[in-house]
Amino acid sequence: MTIKILTLFPEMFQPFLATSIIKRALEKNLINIEVIDLRQYSNDKHNHVDDTPYGGGKGMVIKVDVVKRALDANSSQMTKVLLTSPRGKTYKQNMANQLAKEEEILILCGHYEGFDERVLNYVDEEISIGDYVLTGGELAAMVIADSITRLQKGVLATGSFEDDSFQTGLLEYPQYTRPTIFEGMSVPSVLQNGNHEEIRKYRLYESLKLTYLRRPDLLVNYKLTKEEEKMLEKIKNESLQNE
Amino acid sequence: MTIKILTLFPEMFQPFLATSIIKRALEKNLINIEVIDLRQYSNDKHNHVDDTPYGGGKGMVIKVDVVKRALDANSSQMTKVLLTSPRGKTYKQNMANQLAKEEEILILCGHYEGFDERVLNYVDEEISIGDYVLTGGELAAMVIADSITRLQKGVLATGSFEDDSFQTGLLEYPQYTRPTIFEGMSVPSVLQNGNHEEIRKYRLYESLKLTYLRRPDLLVNYKLTKEEEKMLEKIKNESLQNE
Repeated sequence: MTIKILTLFPEMFQPFLATSIIKRALEKNLINIEVIDLRQYSNDKHNHVDDTPYGGGKGMVIKVDVVKRALDANSSQMTKVLLTSPRGKTYKQNMANQLAKEEEILILCGHYEGFDERVLNYVDEEISIGDYVLTGGELAAMVIADSITRLQKGVLATGSFEDDSFQTGLLEYPQYTRPTIFEGMSVPSVLQNGNHEEIRKYRLYESLKLTYLRRPDLLVNYKLTKEEEKMLEKIKNESLQNE
Repeated sequence: MTIKILTLFPEMFQPFLATSIIKRALEKNLINIEVIDLRQYSNDKHNHVDDTPYGGGKGMVIKVDVVKRALDANSSQMTKVLLTSPRGKTYKQNMANQLAKEEEILILCGHYEGFDERVLNYVDEEISIGDYVLTGGELAAMVIADSITRLQKGVLATGSFEDDSFQTGLLEYPQYTRPTIFEGMSVPSVLQNGNHEEIRKYRLYESLKLTYLRRPDLLVNYKLTKEEEKMLEKIKNESLQNE
């Protein structure tokens, strides 16, 4: 799979591409990430890519003709073109799972006051990584590229992301490592016993409990097993008693 | 205001700190951002900061004693300690607005399978930037630092963020710049007229319409003015007719 990133700040991506999992995935050709400087598609001698907005207002707007030339040079029929924008659909793990199956995606990074609205004619999807305002789309592009890269076959060891929060549909259970006791706080004894079935139950219970208490919205579309249904009953009763 | 970032990958932050708005804010002392290497708080000779999880499973867990030493050395009573975690509260613009008022925040970047659960005893708030799985908390820390920095006094020109999506509570209206016509698509004539009152109405109407069509959830807590109420009626009627 190829991820192309069209940006005014290509230098922002260098350490991201050189760090840990992404670096190894690139070296092993499990993914191909190209960072492309939008500025080279300017057609004036000062390399301008933006201009003042029609109707007035602060800030600059990125020009549609510049973007169109960049897209013509870097995409084909099979490219899925994404634009990072606070107005986009909110990015979620199920979108990452879908995008990870594409042959090629191109991410247009917004900046300044954003793009000329007519750019949308050449875009397949607008994506927002959350309800907050960022200086530019570079961090959003890295978030999307990171989440997609780790889903590519061979990037992570088998079994290492199945338990992640959002991937199972539940928040992840608590983890502990040495020391066994720290400032009076112990590792739960069940995790020290080595009884795999008890550990499995403990972790499932804690996952359900965290999700129920913190993100009940995630349970709305979650299909509970019989075992999980019983656990959730117990969790609900316990939390009622604690009120 | 000071933002401290405790991470295993300090090098990831260099270009982020050197780019555009953040760079200028640092140079003008409008914000102070310190990136601190967590690994220096290891107390073994191999600089280990993590260990295998109790109860088994893939991945490594960051040790509570390492984190505690790092926090003791880099925080005080007035420091608000945040941990980036998929289990955290979902980050939104109103949280950015709140955090921007703090004297000092410290962001602990998660990695691998996350932190020993006992770390939470030393943390004020767990924050998630969205419902997706990332390799580490570095991108989340940059998102938080970026969103807070641009809210500091003097960082942006007065008036330049009031119209941003989420800051007003509505999605931002469409922007256009030259050329007036591109591949048959024109800039809306109202934006070319120079009638400020008509432009204001057009933009407000488009903001409301985009928000109503794409993110009706944002309107639930939004207080409509009389003018906006009338506009929204019209938008609803129009969208009924288009069904």
